[in-house]
Amino acid sequence: MGARTKKKTVPAGRRARRSDRASSAVPKKLVYGFGDGKAEGKASMRNTLGGKGANLAEMAGLGLPVPPGFTITTDVCTYYREHGQRYPSALDAQVTRALERMEKILDRRFGDPASPLLVSVRSGSRTSMPGMMDTVLNLGLNQSTVEGLIRQSGSARFGYDCYRRFIQMFGDVVLGLKAASGSDGDPFEEIIERKKRQRGVEHDTNLGSDDLREIADDFKALIRDRLGVEFPEDPREQLWAAISAVFGSWDNARALTYRKLNRIPDDWGTAVNVQAMVFGNLGDDCATGVAFTRSPATGDKGLYGEFLANAQGEDVVAGIRTPQQIAKTAAIAQAKASGIAAGKRAPSLEETMPKCFAELVRIAKQLEKHYRDMQDLEFTIERNRLWMLQTRAGKRTAAAAVKIAVDMVGERLISQDEAILRVEPAQLDQLLHPQIAPADRPKPIAKGLPASPGAVGGEVVFSADEAVNLTQAGHKVVLVRIETSPEDIHGMHVAQGVLTARGGMTSHAAVVARGMGKCCVAGCGDIDIDYAKQSFEVGDREIHKGDWITLDGSTGEVFEGTVRTTAPELGGDFGRFMKWADRARTLKVRANADTPHDAEVARKFGAEGIGLCRTEHMFFDGDRIDAVRQMILATDTAGREQALAKLLPMQRLDFVGILRAMAGLPVIIRLLDPPLHEFLPPEEELGALARRLGADEESLHTAYEALHEANPMLGHRGCRLGITYPEIYRMQVRAIAEATAELRREGVRVHPEIMIPLVGHVRELAILREQALQELAEIGRQSSIKLKIPIGTMIELPRAALTADQIATEADFFSFGTNDLTQTTLGLSRDDSGRFLRHYVSNGILPEDPFVSIDQGGVGQLVAIAAERGRRTRPDITLGICGEHGGDPASVAFCNDLGLDYVSCSPYRVPVARLAAAHAALGKKS
Amino acid sequence: MGARTKKKTVPAGRRARRSDRASSAVPKKLVYGFGDGKAEGKASMRNTLGGKGANLAEMAGLGLPVPPGFTITTDVCTYYREHGQRYPSALDAQVTRALERMEKILDRRFGDPASPLLVSVRSGSRTSMPGMMDTVLNLGLNQSTVEGLIRQSGSARFGYDCYRRFIQMFGDVVLGLKAASGSDGDPFEEIIERKKRQRGVEHDTNLGSDDLREIADDFKALIRDRLGVEFPEDPREQLWAAISAVFGSWDNARALTYRKLNRIPDDWGTAVNVQAMVFGNLGDDCATGVAFTRSPATGDKGLYGEFLANAQGEDVVAGIRTPQQIAKTAAIAQAKASGIAAGKRAPSLEETMPKCFAELVRIAKQLEKHYRDMQDLEFTIERNRLWMLQTRAGKRTAAAAVKIAVDMVGERLISQDEAILRVEPAQLDQLLHPQIAPADRPKPIAKGLPASPGAVGGEVVFSADEAVNLTQAGHKVVLVRIETSPEDIHGMHVAQGVLTARGGMTSHAAVVARGMGKCCVAGCGDIDIDYAKQSFEVGDREIHKGDWITLDGSTGEVFEGTVRTTAPELGGDFGRFMKWADRARTLKVRANADTPHDAEVARKFGAEGIGLCRTEHMFFDGDRIDAVRQMILATDTAGREQALAKLLPMQRLDFVGILRAMAGLPVIIRLLDPPLHEFLPPEEELGALARRLGADEESLHTAYEALHEANPMLGHRGCRLGITYPEIYRMQVRAIAEATAELRREGVRVHPEIMIPLVGHVRELAILREQALQELAEIGRQSSIKLKIPIGTMIELPRAALTADQIATEADFFSFGTNDLTQTTLGLSRDDSGRFLRHYVSNGILPEDPFVSIDQGGVGQLVAIAAERGRRTRPDITLGICGEHGGDPASVAFCNDLGLDYVSCSPYRVPVARLAAAHAALGKKS
Repeated sequence: MGARTKKKTVPAGRRARRSDRASSAVPKKLVYGFGDGKAEGKASMRNTLGGKGANLAEMAGLGLPVPPGFTITTDVCTYYREHGQRYPSALDAQVTRALERMEKILDRRFGDPASPLLVSVRSGSRTSMPGMMDTVLNLGLNQSTVEGLIRQSGSARFGYDCYRRFIQMFGDVVLGLKAASGSDGDPFEEIIERKKRQRGVEHDTNLGSDDLREIADDFKALIRDRLGVEFPEDPREQLWAAISAVFGSWDNARALTYRKLNRIPDDWGTAVNVQAMVFGNLGDDCATGVAFTRSPATGDKGLYGEFLANAQGEDVVAGIRTPQQIAKTAAIAQAKASGIAAGKRAPSLEETMPKCFAELVRIAKQLEKHYRDMQDLEFTIERNRLWMLQTRAGKRTAAAAVKIAVDMVGERLISQDEAILRVEPAQLDQLLHPQIAPADRPKPIAKGLPASPGAVGGEVVFSADEAVNLTQAGHKVVLVRIETSPEDIHGMHVAQGVLTARGGMTSHAAVVARGMGKCCVAGCGDIDIDYAKQSFEVGDREIHKGDWITLDGSTGEVFEGTVRTTAPELGGDFGRFMKWADRARTLKVRANADTPHDAEVARKFGAEGIGLCRTEHMFFDGDRIDAVRQMILATDTAGREQALAKLLPMQRLDFVGILRAMAGLPVIIRLLDPPLHEFLPPEEELGALARRLGADEESLHTAYEALHEANPMLGHRGCRLGITYPEIYRMQVRAIAEATAELRREGVRVHPEIMIPLVGHVRELAILREQALQELAEIGRQSSIKLKIPIGTMIELPRAALTADQIATEADFFSFGTNDLTQTTLGLSRDDSGRFLRHYVSNGILPEDPFVSIDQGGVGQLVAIAAERGRRTRPDITLGICGEHGGDPASVAFCNDLGLDYVSCSPYRVPVARLAAAHAALGKKS
Repeated sequence: MGARTKKKTVPAGRRARRSDRASSAVPKKLVYGFGDGKAEGKASMRNTLGGKGANLAEMAGLGLPVPPGFTITTDVCTYYREHGQRYPSALDAQVTRALERMEKILDRRFGDPASPLLVSVRSGSRTSMPGMMDTVLNLGLNQSTVEGLIRQSGSARFGYDCYRRFIQMFGDVVLGLKAASGSDGDPFEEIIERKKRQRGVEHDTNLGSDDLREIADDFKALIRDRLGVEFPEDPREQLWAAISAVFGSWDNARALTYRKLNRIPDDWGTAVNVQAMVFGNLGDDCATGVAFTRSPATGDKGLYGEFLANAQGEDVVAGIRTPQQIAKTAAIAQAKASGIAAGKRAPSLEETMPKCFAELVRIAKQLEKHYRDMQDLEFTIERNRLWMLQTRAGKRTAAAAVKIAVDMVGERLISQDEAILRVEPAQLDQLLHPQIAPADRPKPIAKGLPASPGAVGGEVVFSADEAVNLTQAGHKVVLVRIETSPEDIHGMHVAQGVLTARGGMTSHAAVVARGMGKCCVAGCGDIDIDYAKQSFEVGDREIHKGDWITLDGSTGEVFEGTVRTTAPELGGDFGRFMKWADRARTLKVRANADTPHDAEVARKFGAEGIGLCRTEHMFFDGDRIDAVRQMILATDTAGREQALAKLLPMQRLDFVGILRAMAGLPVIIRLLDPPLHEFLPPEEELGALARRLGADEESLHTAYEALHEANPMLGHRGCRLGITYPEIYRMQVRAIAEATAELRREGVRVHPEIMIPLVGHVRELAILREQALQELAEIGRQSSIKLKIPIGTMIELPRAALTADQIATEADFFSFGTNDLTQTTLGLSRDDSGRFLRHYVSNGILPEDPFVSIDQGGVGQLVAIAAERGRRTRPDITLGICGEHGGDPASVAFCNDLGLDYVSCSPYRVPVARLAAAHAALGKKS
């Protein structure tokens, strides 16, 4: 053991002694002690102490039984990273003093063979990074202190087991033995296996104290052999090495990846918590467990949790033994559910350790009241003494979140505004669709993307027509396609849910399904569809047409057969909660709805009007599509007008239905937008179409070819159609006007608005507005009903946003079509971006899929510019957004901050948007 | 003739008497007189007096012989339009006074049967609107004054001919008889025809004075019958009606359309010029003609022009008689060219009226000197007395424009700066390509769009491969295609010119041909191509493969056979002129060039570097394309790298050639940009490709399908390829680095720059820049040559422009890719916009094709934003634009005004851009 090996024992630069003199920028206080009813830190010091350290200090400060310890601040981590892994000079003395305080509180001494103090060394950053960084337990043990531990615990086996665990953990985490061994397996575990074979026993628990002592020795020899270093006997040396390892683990590969994915800045750093060990595994008067102050599944009040008797915390996590319920009622209920006889069930903590249980209940109540939120607790009972190891806000389901928030308002723990902020808007989605009952969830046969939430089952069909046929015959079906296209919409409409093998979260299937509020699992690469055989393979199964499957669109899971689901509950706590949210927000929430049914759903979900009614979706219904195709393939105005005359009464009927469903509320109807070829059948079906229309097949083919576009997204669509074929828009405006006149004559108060899409130049809007006004005036004259209908435009081209001041001269309202605006601003086709967008997001090139959450840095600038310029021209102009972003909480917050009047989203996202708007109004960034 | 008919004689509201009292906003002076060596107006009062009136005043003010008259200002027109066709109250008196002055000067009297004054009434607006508005001649004639005219002229026939012409013109223009007759033919002409039949004569000239008198009576009867009004006998009534008709003609349909197309504001209005009639048709001592002070075709000095003896101005325009040359030398030359014997030629004005000729020469010189520009003159000689009727700057060819500008500097008439402004940049294009000699121009067989200028001939071929084969065999070919695609580029490259049946000015053929400086006629719908028969039909002709045709890409004409062309001359006057332009401008001009040949051409045309070298164009050459396809269809990185290894030496060779050709100047090389599927063959050729590559056809098909994109323009291209397939860009950077090292080792001073396309987020650029720097550093190490190569990016997405401040942190330069920026900002696919963009431009919805001239209101805002934000981050950042707009004068001016450093355009547009930049620097708006 020369200088060389000595030096290697603790990696270079990891000692406090190698401190840097230029430490003036570092705060003076680097270490915060806690324990014995006192603490130097508190919960609000999360940035400095990390989440764990701050809450340990807070609990200690409250006088709760927390094992004493101290936290080394995140400032030290920053210093350490920026100064070549050296520490501020003041650190060493502060750690020493903090350690002395611990020794005093516990009357034990670090390295004292007679009464050794053992500690844990753990990371703790500002936000939770579960499992990403390193931990060392039982630190302070060596050849002589282990004897003290044996004396303290009265068990040689316990002492040596702790010792060998410590060596193993230290060897792996601090000295890097596992990493150095590569993929050769775990050499520590091999030693244990060898010993078991020697002894002819099966389980670790069958090994005796001598075996464990020998194993400890073998471990140390292994370290010497493999790493050429001696295992450090000096507890102080152990401690500094462990502290450095924890700081170093901030920059390990796992942590870096995690931070990148979760956008946690690298310079936040971690704190290090050094805390006295307490043992839940010293005998039957010991235990360890986790508890929630209310049910994280339902929100019901009462202590919910599990424990293991005579065990360490890691055993609970490892899941080798089945944990027992803490509360007696829960234990009884569980036994009943599992069919265990009353006398044979495992006892609850309430029964086995009533005093500790009572104390835990008291502490839980105290903590919940103190933090004013449901807490997730960790505790250990050492020889009938309860120690609190952690408290934090508990994660919860959406249902629990709503119930807890509402209950806590009732208990006067929190205000209504606070309650609103306690529920994540995105979570609400879970509540608005049927769910698979947790107890009934089977093993899935495949997993795709959770494209549109809900849980549904039905017979497998592989074509839209089949879906319609079977549905009409009274069956429930799930439409399974490689991918979907506008041709499939009628099938999607009738199906319970949609499953696709290809496509991302913003594929056609996903977008349309979300718009319909229909369950969808997209991009499920596990399934291999064979249309010819009318079946798909998944693993070694083959699912045929007519077989029943169940989809969970909230998780992306696919199940074989039927699975029990529970229906959503929109009243009760949920209804009360949403009322508070509505009171808090200023931003209005409308829905995108294309049919009377959608409009009714939207109203049920609290929509305050329709922000986008896409007239073209109606074109696919029934035999309309052929009239639409006749119009498209017409070679002259007369031919188009003939086809349009067929469509007029159908469109009028649509509008009557939608306007009636939204009586009293505004309904923005967008005139025809997509390129006409979207309405055509596949080329091979032109023959059949020609026969149905009585047209010449050859000329249909010519017209078909002429409609082909290289970039349809940027092609002949939107108001460009209105300009070149004025008769189309004229028919649509007439249908709106006639529907309005009809309803008003009936006394129904309807408020249609006409929206012109894809305007890039004010002159386009001026021409089409004038034309629409003429049409309205004519119907107004004919019907003797005054038709003052606002006319506005989509802002969905960068040019429109940039010239919004001019465009506003012709527009009563702007609706930001952020889907298309994203496509053009980023030059990104939603249909084609799948090939690289996932790579972009997962590699942090883009923070988020810009089709899911608005690209504030780019698209957001244009929205802001257009809002400002539009209002400059016309201060009373109504501004809103429609499209996918209208239901994304971050985007809703952005719209709120810009002062838009409303967001519009698919009916099922309306409650999400309402809550997000409330959050935004309350100043919370989503 | 009761009140009713009286009222109808002069249309309601067209009399000065019906004036408005509220005329305070109108200037006091509404009428400007001229004549007898004096004038109240002058040339600079164009806005008030119109072009014609201002120049008549100016000539009169110079003491030149101008028939006296007066101009009613444009203010009156404005008033008239805004006040329900009423006049300011002061007008009547001012017109009366002006008329009295004319009477005094000429000693004739309006309506005086003894010595009648006759006048013309003509429009004259700020800018010339040829033929758009109305004119009335010989006004003042009636039953009694015609007798005075007969006495004055000594010819009854002349008198009655004038009279019947006046009635006819007044009937059509003022009373609207022709318009009222609809498409039934011209009733006045019918009367003449009837009279000729009666008399059994063939020509109008065979009708005698009695015939003409009877015709005049019949005309008046016709007016009475058809319109129910009496032809006005009162000259004052005639005058006011004619004035109102001219003001009214400002708003006739023709004029409205013309103004819309030429973006002339409606509120400019027209002036009305009332001028004494002079007659060039009173006998052989009379003549009328037009003259230029220098040759408008060549710019040669000397009076050029034509006249007709004993004729009115309208006869020259009508082209019934062949006019004679004014100058003797010209008359001799013309006779010689037409093979007319010396004795038989028509005499010149110089010979027939030497005194008038000498005066005309003197006046021409005086006017040219006065206006300091070549003048276009109109004159009439009445009984040996010369009268000047008009002068204005003469239109001229590009060659003439350059020569006149250079000569006038030599003559100290104008400064070099003025000379620069005398040549329209767009005109220069004519000079840079071979032209069809004007004398040799045959009748075209078809006409398409003038897509890329020049005149070339060759044998017709219908495929790119054929073009290559025949060219290699020594033939000259013209490639004829329905439309072209990237697959045709090798054929376009070798062909003399390209003719397509489909596609617009910005179609693939047009854009690529302009880039190559290759003659192209696009969208020639007259031709009907049959690839199978290897021929095309046009009219009743059929042109086969191998037949010779000639294209004129400057006019869009197609000729059968060979036509003589003249080569461009870049030295001499042109060279001198361009040097002045270069001295005047501050904006640099670079070229877009993809091959060493292009680079050489660009240098010859004065390019100061390469602003855009598209690496992908090199990928189509020879057998490279198969290596490219192998790379694209590879299923893994290893496969791609194998193919890239083949491409590396070829790319290096390209770069060596280009950099060498541009030694001493910057060369911006853009890394791969287009979506990969652009490099693939048509699907039906995959089999052959598979055999050539030794690959599996099935998997090629799969890869092919996978590459399909819905909107390739917004798809997986540009830097997105670099991010997902880093090995591609790495190869290209390596090729650039190795080429640079090689040349620098030779001592050649080369300045490559690397450009990353389609960046939308700074992180994309940061990643690719870092990767490129690594590659450069490595080649630098290997070659021991320091490779400090600037790295920049295209700004071609709105998001890039909006976040230019961030992007500039990673970019040494920005190049505005305004083609793609236009596509994304306007949401307009260049490939697909043909269907509606022409409609947009011709209907004034967009002022110009935004792919031809930059959309300053939209795209321009983004360029300005990006320039400002880029410089804020990095004040020394180099800014330029590349793409089609770089050669458009208006866009060049825009770039100059924004303070960009350079524009880059196709080699053949470089002189245009140089001159446009000079114009911009001199403060002229193009």
